[in-house]
Amino acid sequence: MQHHGRFITLEGGEGAGKSTQALRLARHLAERGLPVLLTREPGGAPGAEAMRRLLLGGAGLDPVAEAMLVFAARREHLVSTIRPALAAGMWVISDRFADSTRAYQGHGQGVPQAVIAALADIALEGQAPDLTLLLDLPVDIGMARARRRGVAADRYEKLDTAFHQRIRDGFRAIAAAEPGRCATVDATPDADAVAARIAALVDERLPAGVPA
Amino acid sequence: MQHHGRFITLEGGEGAGKSTQALRLARHLAERGLPVLLTREPGGAPGAEAMRRLLLGGAGLDPVAEAMLVFAARREHLVSTIRPALAAGMWVISDRFADSTRAYQGHGQGVPQAVIAALADIALEGQAPDLTLLLDLPVDIGMARARRRGVAADRYEKLDTAFHQRIRDGFRAIAAAEPGRCATVDATPDADAVAARIAALVDERLPAGVPA
Ligand SMILES: Nc1ncnc2c1ncn2[C@@H]1O[C@H](COP(=O)(O)OP(=O)(O)O)[C@@H](O)[C@H]1O
Ligand SMILES: Nc1ncnc2c1ncn2[C@@H]1O[C@H](COP(=O)(O)OP(=O)(O)O)[C@@H](O)[C@H]1O
Ligand SMILES: [Mg+2]
Ligand SMILES: [Mg+2]
Repeated sequence: MQHHGRFITLEGGEGAGKSTQALRLARHLAERGLPVLLTREPGGAPGAEAMRRLLLGGAGLDPVAEAMLVFAARREHLVSTIRPALAAGMWVISDRFADSTRAYQGHGQGVPQAVIAALADIALEGQAPDLTLLLDLPVDIGMARARRRGVAADRYEKLDTAFHQRIRDGFRAIAAAEPGRCATVDATPDADAVAARIAALVDERLPAGVPA
Repeated sequence: MQHHGRFITLEGGEGAGKSTQALRLARHLAERGLPVLLTREPGGAPGAEAMRRLLLGGAGLDPVAEAMLVFAARREHLVSTIRPALAAGMWVISDRFADSTRAYQGHGQGVPQAVIAALADIALEGQAPDLTLLLDLPVDIGMARARRRGVAADRYEKLDTAFHQRIRDGFRAIAAAEPGRCATVDATPDADAVAARIAALVDERLPAGVPA
């Protein structure tokens, strides 16, 4: 994929600090003088936000149907939002992306990784993040943080501890398998410390001005 | 796929008479003493009907995203509605199924047939209709019939004649390629004549009481 911007994704379980750190990273990059697009999944484009409402609010779908719906939304997000921004030279930060499907629908709900890989091939045509930051945190701490957030719990947050443990283990396995793309960040320190660690990682791995 | 019911799909362009003939066929099978489930796509299950509203009402998606969304809805329809009915011995009639995606998103909108085939493999795991009735009609007659129906036109009906011609040609190519599964029915005669032809075809191809 030829582009001039950079594509950074934040991944991790509930309450790991993805949304908090996505904003902090956007500020850091803006301070470096870079043009930033901050987006999130599921959603990030009008058609995809409509699918988000089905995913988070609905009664629950067959896991394969859910994986297909997630990738339909991701495709729309990629084509309508991410690709045009990268082509325009922006630094795109996405709060969740394809690794969330590998972890939630794959490790969490048992959809075969080969099915998820086939859907990813169709939807993404090889477009991968330049850098994925995995915010890693013990499940109980993440759940406690998510509860304190004060927003009503969505369908995933209500699932049990064993589910969330599979998610955490799944994310760690993904990051271990793709060390070139992924960096694991200890998400237990306070938000300022995590933000500083992420800024250092991004500056080191993605120095500005050097073409990808 | 092991099942005791039968799975019949009706396919064709706008105004070909699919919905009219689906009802007529349901009546015919019921008169033969068979248990009938009449359903339609996109939709046919609660989660899938929500996706139908996105597909027909929305602003239009990237064609690959649309194909993925259609198959997500189809997967849900298959798992929640079609498979349980077949397992219970019912004769399932679906007003549209996978051939509509091959025709509309494939021949109509240019999504590669290999992509559609990969999505079908994931969603359907080999489950194909026992019989597909293709209602074939010149495009101008179909469009005139659809307009007379008096319901507001959906997003597909508003597309141009060249699009609908590609759909018709696409359906005919599918039926020609799979003569064992598909039967092409001339949809130009009046509804009674078409219904009689369909009843005769179904009775001949799917005699009751003989296991599939
Ligand atoms: N490093 C941190 N230490 C303690 N609390 C945090 C930290 N990062 C975020 N939080 C708080 O935890 C909650 C969840 O953070 P959030 O960024 O929404 O997580 P996520 O998007 O990963 O679910 C929020 O109330 C947030 O203010
Ligand atoms: N064989 C036929 N001849 C003339 N009009 C028909 C015939 N079959 C259906 N119609 C009418 O054409 C319109 C479209 O039929 P419908 O069954 O809704 O088509 P589809 O579901 O394929 O779009 C309806 O108003 C219907 O009453
Ligand atoms: Mg968040
Ligand atoms: Mg109809």
